[in-house]
Amino acid sequence: MTELPGVVVTGVSGRMGQMLVREILASDRLKLAGALERSGHDWVGRDLGECMGGAALGVLVSDDPLEAFARAQAVIDFTAPAATVAFAELAAQARAVHVIGTTGLSADDLAKIHTAGRHAVIVRAGNMSLGVNLLTKVTRQVAAALDEDWDIEIVEAHHNKKVDAPSGTALMLGEAAAEGRGVELDAVSDRGRDGITGARKRGDIGFHAIRGGDVVGEHEVIFASAGERIVIKHIASDRALFARGALKAALWGQGKAPGEYDMLDVLGLN
Amino acid sequence: MTELPGVVVTGVSGRMGQMLVREILASDRLKLAGALERSGHDWVGRDLGECMGGAALGVLVSDDPLEAFARAQAVIDFTAPAATVAFAELAAQARAVHVIGTTGLSADDLAKIHTAGRHAVIVRAGNMSLGVNLLTKVTRQVAAALDEDWDIEIVEAHHNKKVDAPSGTALMLGEAAAEGRGVELDAVSDRGRDGITGARKRGDIGFHAIRGGDVVGEHEVIFASAGERIVIKHIASDRALFARGALKAALWGQGKAPGEYDMLDVLGLN
Amino acid sequence: MTELPGVVVTGVSGRMGQMLVREILASDRLKLAGALERSGHDWVGRDLGECMGGAALGVLVSDDPLEAFARAQAVIDFTAPAATVAFAELAAQARAVHVIGTTGLSADDLAKIHTAGRHAVIVRAGNMSLGVNLLTKVTRQVAAALDEDWDIEIVEAHHNKKVDAPSGTALMLGEAAAEGRGVELDAVSDRGRDGITGARKRGDIGFHAIRGGDVVGEHEVIFASAGERIVIKHIASDRALFARGALKAALWGQGKAPGEYDMLDVLGLN
Amino acid sequence: MTELPGVVVTGVSGRMGQMLVREILASDRLKLAGALERSGHDWVGRDLGECMGGAALGVLVSDDPLEAFARAQAVIDFTAPAATVAFAELAAQARAVHVIGTTGLSADDLAKIHTAGRHAVIVRAGNMSLGVNLLTKVTRQVAAALDEDWDIEIVEAHHNKKVDAPSGTALMLGEAAAEGRGVELDAVSDRGRDGITGARKRGDIGFHAIRGGDVVGEHEVIFASAGERIVIKHIASDRALFARGALKAALWGQGKAPGEYDMLDVLGLN
Repeated sequence: MTELPGVVVTGVSGRMGQMLVREILASDRLKLAGALERSGHDWVGRDLGECMGGAALGVLVSDDPLEAFARAQAVIDFTAPAATVAFAELAAQARAVHVIGTTGLSADDLAKIHTAGRHAVIVRAGNMSLGVNLLTKVTRQVAAALDEDWDIEIVEAHHNKKVDAPSGTALMLGEAAAEGRGVELDAVSDRGRDGITGARKRGDIGFHAIRGGDVVGEHEVIFASAGERIVIKHIASDRALFARGALKAALWGQGKAPGEYDMLDVLGLN
Repeated sequence: MTELPGVVVTGVSGRMGQMLVREILASDRLKLAGALERSGHDWVGRDLGECMGGAALGVLVSDDPLEAFARAQAVIDFTAPAATVAFAELAAQARAVHVIGTTGLSADDLAKIHTAGRHAVIVRAGNMSLGVNLLTKVTRQVAAALDEDWDIEIVEAHHNKKVDAPSGTALMLGEAAAEGRGVELDAVSDRGRDGITGARKRGDIGFHAIRGGDVVGEHEVIFASAGERIVIKHIASDRALFARGALKAALWGQGKAPGEYDMLDVLGLN
Repeated sequence: MTELPGVVVTGVSGRMGQMLVREILASDRLKLAGALERSGHDWVGRDLGECMGGAALGVLVSDDPLEAFARAQAVIDFTAPAATVAFAELAAQARAVHVIGTTGLSADDLAKIHTAGRHAVIVRAGNMSLGVNLLTKVTRQVAAALDEDWDIEIVEAHHNKKVDAPSGTALMLGEAAAEGRGVELDAVSDRGRDGITGARKRGDIGFHAIRGGDVVGEHEVIFASAGERIVIKHIASDRALFARGALKAALWGQGKAPGEYDMLDVLGLN
Repeated sequence: MTELPGVVVTGVSGRMGQMLVREILASDRLKLAGALERSGHDWVGRDLGECMGGAALGVLVSDDPLEAFARAQAVIDFTAPAATVAFAELAAQARAVHVIGTTGLSADDLAKIHTAGRHAVIVRAGNMSLGVNLLTKVTRQVAAALDEDWDIEIVEAHHNKKVDAPSGTALMLGEAAAEGRGVELDAVSDRGRDGITGARKRGDIGFHAIRGGDVVGEHEVIFASAGERIVIKHIASDRALFARGALKAALWGQGKAPGEYDMLDVLGLN
């Protein structure tokens, strides 16, 4: 009988961290190998199951990533940029697949993650759902089929606790649109309009971040031309979607050649 | 200097007929070769320009399609099923490209049009816009990528004068979705729910026809699964869009081999 | 110290029944007084907490409504028409507030419930959320401000397990629109369009029931006129919303005069 | 027989100016009394009808507002802030009703218009349609009924030529929401999110300006809370809507007491 690949969950006390734990416990293809929190967090050293308000799991929450990663085949990480960059290096040392759902990463962060990816498997995606990844592909394709008479705008909506804007998924869709057009997103990105802006600049890709209530995540890409509009939209209504996608990535990454991958690779959409 | 291809417009007194005339008059690649109305209509025998409330055009409205088609290279036809079937045969005799935007055609009507298409070029589409035709292709592709855990529903909205439901475009999108899934639309089409319906039947494709105000035409294809939805939407805001697509088809059809074509052929999206 | 009002939950094994139990257990203003299932259901006679997969609650699931209602101050009931009509009579005998969220009730069912309401407090609503009830009021008002040049269409979307159409909430919004216009909904209700329908009938109110995935519940009322549209929309993303509204109604009904009430009364929106 | 009130249209060569002229010519309750353009514009001194590509109207385009206003009972003005401020003073001198559809006015501009309104009738509105004005009222009311657990976001979409953001209508809806809540819009207005923004500030009202294609004008007010959302939306599909509203205002203003009014006054919605 083969041993199931073991997964460490980082930021385990957060909403996403706990959801990952529940999905791993419910999975028959992966097992929980560890749980991390930052030093000083009051869960550290305690039984994870009890911290989560249930029965003991026999897994203690740790603040030592290196030790935890050494015993694991994968790390699933929806934390913050600084932590994720550090984890990337440690996961690479441990030869564990690093699944990254963290958003708000800077160009510098990405470069460091890229370096780590030379020695280990990294799967990184602004969004882990099948729907969004399929739409990323469709967006690239539609953008490639239409010329700049079609203005592109990306509108996303998330809950009122989200701290960064636009969302990682919105940027992923923007990248896809820019690629479809053969331009660099940075050169055409327009992040908000206020006051006397003048007419819209041809070729720009506009971003809008709506925040309110407990919206899980909604994204739309608008292509607007004279007399017609195309709108491609995704609505996520259950956060477990992202957790399940991350598990799929952790499993898929086992035995792959070192390198950086995304969910299109995992889902076979590339 | 080459002569421009001449176009006959059928149902010329209608809203779409007049719009086609205006677009042809404004075109530098096509010319107006004739204008048809049904026998007994009070425009018949009068100057088209004057009927339309402007200056004389030197084109008399006719009720004789055979004579009109004989002098033309194309016929653009947004009328009603019975008229369109008759025009298909006459256009084929005249070797004129027949561009058909008529909706509500029965299987029997389609068979007759198909017969006519053995001898002449026919371009037929439920919708002549670039956007809708591109979405037809995307719909086929997305339906092919997703399994039947994703319920498909098609919602369309049109002005309160529209007499048929669902719209030709909605059916076109439904056909594309069914093709993507490898099923026959007729076998899975669900046209309205009322009363105690029971749970949704897996694999069905639902249709909904909203009617109100002067909505030009809006269509959305919804793919709904556990925790996420994909929505692909088209909004037409200017009827001239369809007229311009029809002109493009009339031009494209010149010199093509006999057969039935659609706008994906015309737009090079196939 | 005052005793908290005790609530019996009917249909306790269902998704809504279990959610009601969880909300009551979490409430500091209501307590759980009983749990009902139909005779023969395998939960009957067992501890409710254990049936729900948790710790024992000391509450046995019963199939005897009369006995259960006699010990309660309120009954919360999201079941099916026949059961709800029977419960209405028994709840009235027991002088318990009957909160009814059941949909698909016929005119005959409503008449029987009305009779029961002469002796007890009944709160009945197609939807228990603050948002929908506020929109019901807004819909009535907007319909009253606009004439029949504005076509009204109601579109709702629910998960693929829902067995009736249109939803109780859609009908509630339709009733409000009809009231605003001073017409009877039955006289103007249009439940689906298919085939050669002819032009839309002025004054009609159209209904459309989208079914797919696990959509919790979405409703929109469209007012469409020449050149402009008003859309009033509600999106529910958490079923607990309805449970919480029902608890609010159970509490509000304590000590009220016998009669039939709705959520506008409970929320003070009348 | 009474003489019809005469109207001067400012900025007559623009898209909105020409639409106003056409609506006035088609009206049997108002007549065209003059047409203004800025000095140096090549329409000045020529016949308006011929400039617009039709038959002569016997009305010369003028660049002298004082002389034009002296012969009129109303001025309809969709130009730019500086021109509108100047026109307000001249219209007041001429005792002509000044209908202002200009957007992007600063606080200073508004103060000057207010001063002019002491001596003449001014009707000013960010949007002249019945639908938007009705929604303004509904927005105020819904905002008053809900507490700050409901986050408010306003999203508007316009064509790619629009030079200011957010639209006058979006601000009008924002003012209504702020009034409903009893706060000052300036104190809570949030105009775009980009980067690490932190969690949404409770009580804020967010604005988003989408620009693309030839969208006439769409506005939505979102109220988002835990588990539910209310969305109130307006879609304008025909610019003539705004022109017709302005004519209605010009007529309504005849014989009214001096002062500043809005479309709620004109439409009897206050």
